[in-house]
Amino acid sequence: MSGKIYYNGNIVDRENAKVDIEDRGYQFADGVYEVVAFYHGEPFTLNEHMERLVFSASEIDIELPPAEILIKEAKNYIKETEYADKNAKLYVQVSRGVASRSHAYPDGMEPIIIMKAGPLDPNPEKYFQEGVKIITLPDERWSRCYIKSIALLPNILAKKKAKKAGAYEAIMTRDGFITEGSSSNIFIVEDETIITPPATNYILNGITRQTVINRLAPELNYEVKEESIPYYTLLNTDQVFLTGTTTEIMPVVQINDKVVGNGKVGKETKEIFEAFRELTGFVRGK
Amino acid sequence: MSGKIYYNGNIVDRENAKVDIEDRGYQFADGVYEVVAFYHGEPFTLNEHMERLVFSASEIDIELPPAEILIKEAKNYIKETEYADKNAKLYVQVSRGVASRSHAYPDGMEPIIIMKAGPLDPNPEKYFQEGVKIITLPDERWSRCYIKSIALLPNILAKKKAKKAGAYEAIMTRDGFITEGSSSNIFIVEDETIITPPATNYILNGITRQTVINRLAPELNYEVKEESIPYYTLLNTDQVFLTGTTTEIMPVVQINDKVVGNGKVGKETKEIFEAFRELTGFVRGK
Repeated sequence: MSGKIYYNGNIVDRENAKVDIEDRGYQFADGVYEVVAFYHGEPFTLNEHMERLVFSASEIDIELPPAEILIKEAKNYIKETEYADKNAKLYVQVSRGVASRSHAYPDGMEPIIIMKAGPLDPNPEKYFQEGVKIITLPDERWSRCYIKSIALLPNILAKKKAKKAGAYEAIMTRDGFITEGSSSNIFIVEDETIITPPATNYILNGITRQTVINRLAPELNYEVKEESIPYYTLLNTDQVFLTGTTTEIMPVVQINDKVVGNGKVGKETKEIFEAFRELTGFVRGK
Repeated sequence: MSGKIYYNGNIVDRENAKVDIEDRGYQFADGVYEVVAFYHGEPFTLNEHMERLVFSASEIDIELPPAEILIKEAKNYIKETEYADKNAKLYVQVSRGVASRSHAYPDGMEPIIIMKAGPLDPNPEKYFQEGVKIITLPDERWSRCYIKSIALLPNILAKKKAKKAGAYEAIMTRDGFITEGSSSNIFIVEDETIITPPATNYILNGITRQTVINRLAPELNYEVKEESIPYYTLLNTDQVFLTGTTTEIMPVVQINDKVVGNGKVGKETKEIFEAFRELTGFVRGK
């Protein structure tokens, strides 16, 4: 292992980045996180991610420093790493801190903030150009998915099932409607309209999701609707794509054993994908 | 901090008991746990707890050594600690292990098993003799609560709400029926019959719950029914008690602002409480 880790305001060597066994993040999933992409050393939507981190924390009664401070810390930290001018992925984790094990947390604990930079590890270019397969599964998660918590056990089990089925992602359904993927949001395209499930408590309102809705689709003059998508609508629509920080804009051409549309990446999906690449300044292979 | 920690087969000093920041237990709540009571150095239902640990792990695709081995390890470990002949609480945590962060776990990972002994910290005797208050809350947890996973964020938030309300526990309701507490199971008594919600996927089938159903109630000649309990039945019943490893048999005399029955601990509850004390060999103050 190599590299430097941000650990509560200090930069430490990777091999010294350990947490106590009574860190509540370890014993209770008592924490929240973010993943931020950096393109050529420049953060993409860092502000939005850090604001969401502060929000997620506050929803579980953890008080963080203001987002502006975290943003500065993240930028300074990245400069100290081997990713200073590269494409990178920044993982930020917050736990409530260390305390003798007891469900009810003490008041006034000092949260622990850890950041780790790593390679962006982009998906194979083939996935973006030709599309991927997804599977569908019942949504087994808790009812507060709008919090980006580290209680990710249902998500990782769903993702593993997807991988075992040779799929990129598992899309979850709750009460007959689709919610989102194990680590991505989902969109469909119908008659040139971009549709995605609304940001209820059952989904994480992804930053890339918001970028599509508020920026890319309007710039391309596509109408966007946030409305519930029944399972059968998903199976019978012509275009599907996923969004996420590392997923970026990922076309879907197969759902379980069913081919989506004509099995090729559709026009609107391709335009949104290209607009996203332009926006991030990402150049493949650099 | 003092004491000795069991860490994957080794006994280490407390201050050296750390886990890597990429332990999947820390980043994904990718693990399971147990809490076992020892009375005067003798484990209580240790076999049942370790068998459940192996079961929970297998449900999330983690392969553990057979329960018999874990039982031996636990007994040997306790002997090495200051709790060798005392009342104690043994915390056992399993995580899938350490890997570069990615939702889908690699196959064949080496799980990490940690055990920590601590004082049993019994509840105040007054709680057992006079009963406690509970509150009710919507059940926000995932749909696989039969797995004793470390993804406890909803549980700790519920427990904290209970404490803030001056209550011992929060009992959760799903679709109009009660499920369980944030760290305990619940029973009611109606016409000398002991009733508790069935062990569906929405509850953790507690070892103390099973002890009441399979051992204490039959010995006392009480009929036991495992059937769904509507919220309004809970509010209007005469006797309520909770069960759990550290909760033991805990009478409830108030639910939210409503007094249960006549506000005193009922006859059947008291008998079950006393039978449990006898069974564990627990002598207060020893």
